[in-house]
Amino acid sequence: MTRIQNYIEEHKDRFLQELFGLISIPSISSSSEHKQDMYKAAEYWKQLLLDAGADKAMVMETEGHPVTFGEKIIDPALPTILVYAHMDVMPVDPLHLWNTDPFTPIIKDDKIWARGADDDKGQSFMHAKAFEYMVKTKTLPCNVKFLIEGEEEIGSPNLGKFCTEHKQMLKSDVILVSDTTMISADQPSITTGLRGLSYWQVEVSGPNRDLHSGLYGGAVANPINILCRMIERCTNKNNSIAIPDFYKNVEEVTDEERRLLNKRPFDKEAYKKAIGVDKLFGEMGYTTIERTGIRPSFDVCGIWGGFSGEGAKTVLPSKAYAKLSCRLVPGQDHEEIGKLMEWYLQSIAPKSITVNVEYLHGGQAYVCPIDHPAYKAAEQALTDTFGVQPLPVRSGGSIPIVAAFEAILEVKTILMGFGLESDAIHSPNENFPLYNFYKGIETIPLFYDYFTSKFSK
Amino acid sequence: MTRIQNYIEEHKDRFLQELFGLISIPSISSSSEHKQDMYKAAEYWKQLLLDAGADKAMVMETEGHPVTFGEKIIDPALPTILVYAHMDVMPVDPLHLWNTDPFTPIIKDDKIWARGADDDKGQSFMHAKAFEYMVKTKTLPCNVKFLIEGEEEIGSPNLGKFCTEHKQMLKSDVILVSDTTMISADQPSITTGLRGLSYWQVEVSGPNRDLHSGLYGGAVANPINILCRMIERCTNKNNSIAIPDFYKNVEEVTDEERRLLNKRPFDKEAYKKAIGVDKLFGEMGYTTIERTGIRPSFDVCGIWGGFSGEGAKTVLPSKAYAKLSCRLVPGQDHEEIGKLMEWYLQSIAPKSITVNVEYLHGGQAYVCPIDHPAYKAAEQALTDTFGVQPLPVRSGGSIPIVAAFEAILEVKTILMGFGLESDAIHSPNENFPLYNFYKGIETIPLFYDYFTSKFSK
Repeated sequence: MTRIQNYIEEHKDRFLQELFGLISIPSISSSSEHKQDMYKAAEYWKQLLLDAGADKAMVMETEGHPVTFGEKIIDPALPTILVYAHMDVMPVDPLHLWNTDPFTPIIKDDKIWARGADDDKGQSFMHAKAFEYMVKTKTLPCNVKFLIEGEEEIGSPNLGKFCTEHKQMLKSDVILVSDTTMISADQPSITTGLRGLSYWQVEVSGPNRDLHSGLYGGAVANPINILCRMIERCTNKNNSIAIPDFYKNVEEVTDEERRLLNKRPFDKEAYKKAIGVDKLFGEMGYTTIERTGIRPSFDVCGIWGGFSGEGAKTVLPSKAYAKLSCRLVPGQDHEEIGKLMEWYLQSIAPKSITVNVEYLHGGQAYVCPIDHPAYKAAEQALTDTFGVQPLPVRSGGSIPIVAAFEAILEVKTILMGFGLESDAIHSPNENFPLYNFYKGIETIPLFYDYFTSKFSK
Repeated sequence: MTRIQNYIEEHKDRFLQELFGLISIPSISSSSEHKQDMYKAAEYWKQLLLDAGADKAMVMETEGHPVTFGEKIIDPALPTILVYAHMDVMPVDPLHLWNTDPFTPIIKDDKIWARGADDDKGQSFMHAKAFEYMVKTKTLPCNVKFLIEGEEEIGSPNLGKFCTEHKQMLKSDVILVSDTTMISADQPSITTGLRGLSYWQVEVSGPNRDLHSGLYGGAVANPINILCRMIERCTNKNNSIAIPDFYKNVEEVTDEERRLLNKRPFDKEAYKKAIGVDKLFGEMGYTTIERTGIRPSFDVCGIWGGFSGEGAKTVLPSKAYAKLSCRLVPGQDHEEIGKLMEWYLQSIAPKSITVNVEYLHGGQAYVCPIDHPAYKAAEQALTDTFGVQPLPVRSGGSIPIVAAFEAILEVKTILMGFGLESDAIHSPNENFPLYNFYKGIETIPLFYDYFTSKFSK
């Protein structure tokens, strides 16, 4: 047994007791009736950090739920790791599908069962205990800061402003987050990329009223026909995106990283079966893992116009609408893509109709290069504890706050998650395996060591 | 003054009094509270025909409103004209927009004002009085039958069956109908064509549930994207229809008829302004009159799928739907086209989705060739009374019963209408100019004469 394994063995009953104390606070951020619980959770975190050895820790106000900040600065010349996590949890409905009370955690089958067991109370608690270990054993190799927010599950509406207002306080060399999954307990992984997003609403207007499709059909542009034609012209036959310059700034992923990404186990038949399709579909020349990880996509999220009732009403409608979205990859700026789409749709619109494009929403993509010191440190730490080299994973989804950290705090985030797909986060019977929990506590100090030595090189 | 002009002059007060009697019956076929009024109108027609000189006339039951049938057979060896008309009218809402009571006809500005003044009580009444004239003056040159139905404004749901059951009774050499418009009082016209219709509902199914567009976008076929692509592939760049063999049986209209069709006055700027579009749109190589008259069209009447609420919900939807319609032209069989579209959509559907095409509705197109004896007779009759050669007009809309007459009774219909666009049929303040009313009565006996001589040749 290593030194840290001994420490965990010695203290694990207390660890679980403290974690259960945190979990038993029903800190559901989306529900106003739990407003006071958010303060309870923030105070709980403050005490956890102080007990673990923080120089200072405090509950700070935002326009929404509070944030807990704590730090231990051992030497300003050394690197600083900022641990980001969240204390809030998702709602628990439908309650009748839970086997046990969501806020009364229990251990069963070597797993912790409760809301927040993984997301993110279980995962974030590993950082508190790894920090405690390093302080108590006087092995903390660098400075550390903790930023624990209370609004992650509702989209972090106030954290960007908080970061802008506290840039100096949050100054660090890397942000370390455990709020994602790994491929399996046998195959650790590090999430190195998140896609960005652009989202538009398009309105195509034709005649000033719905027309009789017999008297006018064939002589007047039908807004639905035209909208379909314009949407079709957004993609090529090979299923790539047909908008000129759309790929101009797309990050080229190295052959080495593509090779590693594709090493991730992928059961195509199981994947198809789970979503009920006979055949996958996407940009030619790329695997499914690449299509969702390193390539942008174009999806119509909604479309409507004309008659949608029962039967056969003939009409040449006045208007047609669609909600369009693109997932973006590193290199693409969502605002530029927002304007590009608007320009393109206007440029291909026939003069027989008018098009109005509204940019509704967007967010930047994020990537942590696999040659970054933080990636290398995480890779080495995970290899040490799991005995297998972790694989880089690009997630198709978006975590907007990670791109915001890069934009505001100008620092990379390393997504070293210890959860599993089977942990049922956001669902009834959320759970977190004790194996992952303890392995996480073991891995974190190794990351601190490797990052400090690599970064200082 | 001609003999018939004298006859009209002499009897016009009685004509108007009798017509007003018919109009004052509120025979609104769509409203069950007027069920008894339908019988009153049918009895009124029976008496009109008997008074005019019919050998027999009778009110006959259908599963819906009654039909009035009457006839005068002067010689079985002579041709027989079947006059088709309808005694029912459209509802009168919104009542407050009428300047006078819709069922209390008045004469003002040389027009009859009332519901049914034109459609079809005024127009059909001309036939009763022309018939009376020919009987009284012993100039009826052929046999005549009258078929006056009570459900035209609700789509003639029982007339097809009635025709099938009374084929012998309705046997004739031509069907004469005055229920359409002419271009103007200075430019008579004859409606020679009506388009047919095919109507489908299409369902595109992708994954078995709505998916996260971040995690799956780019790797799974999006049913809306695919539906748009399939719809786009229904038309060519020149805006013709791209379905193979779609035009295979389309009637080739002679250069002579195209020339005549395009002589119809058409004010493009006024047309665009009325519907509020900057530019017209349609199949290249054809005029607007041709696009709606002699060419088929493809219109999406409705489309829906995914998220259509406020804001930017990202989703890769499970399903997408559209209502598709084609207006058809003579030569095209709506059932064949129905199957062709289904085959085509299935043939272009990628294997990543499944498509379900349901044929909801259809009707055949109709055409009366301009070298048909009935057309020639109508052309000559109108030239005599209006002093101008009438133009053939192809209407973009459909009157399903006309195609049914051809299919069941195997006889052509001649649409010799005396209404004007300004008559506001189906709208408040419906009216019918006395000039058109009297000219109609003058024209009809000439049609009888010319048809009898041309047909017998």
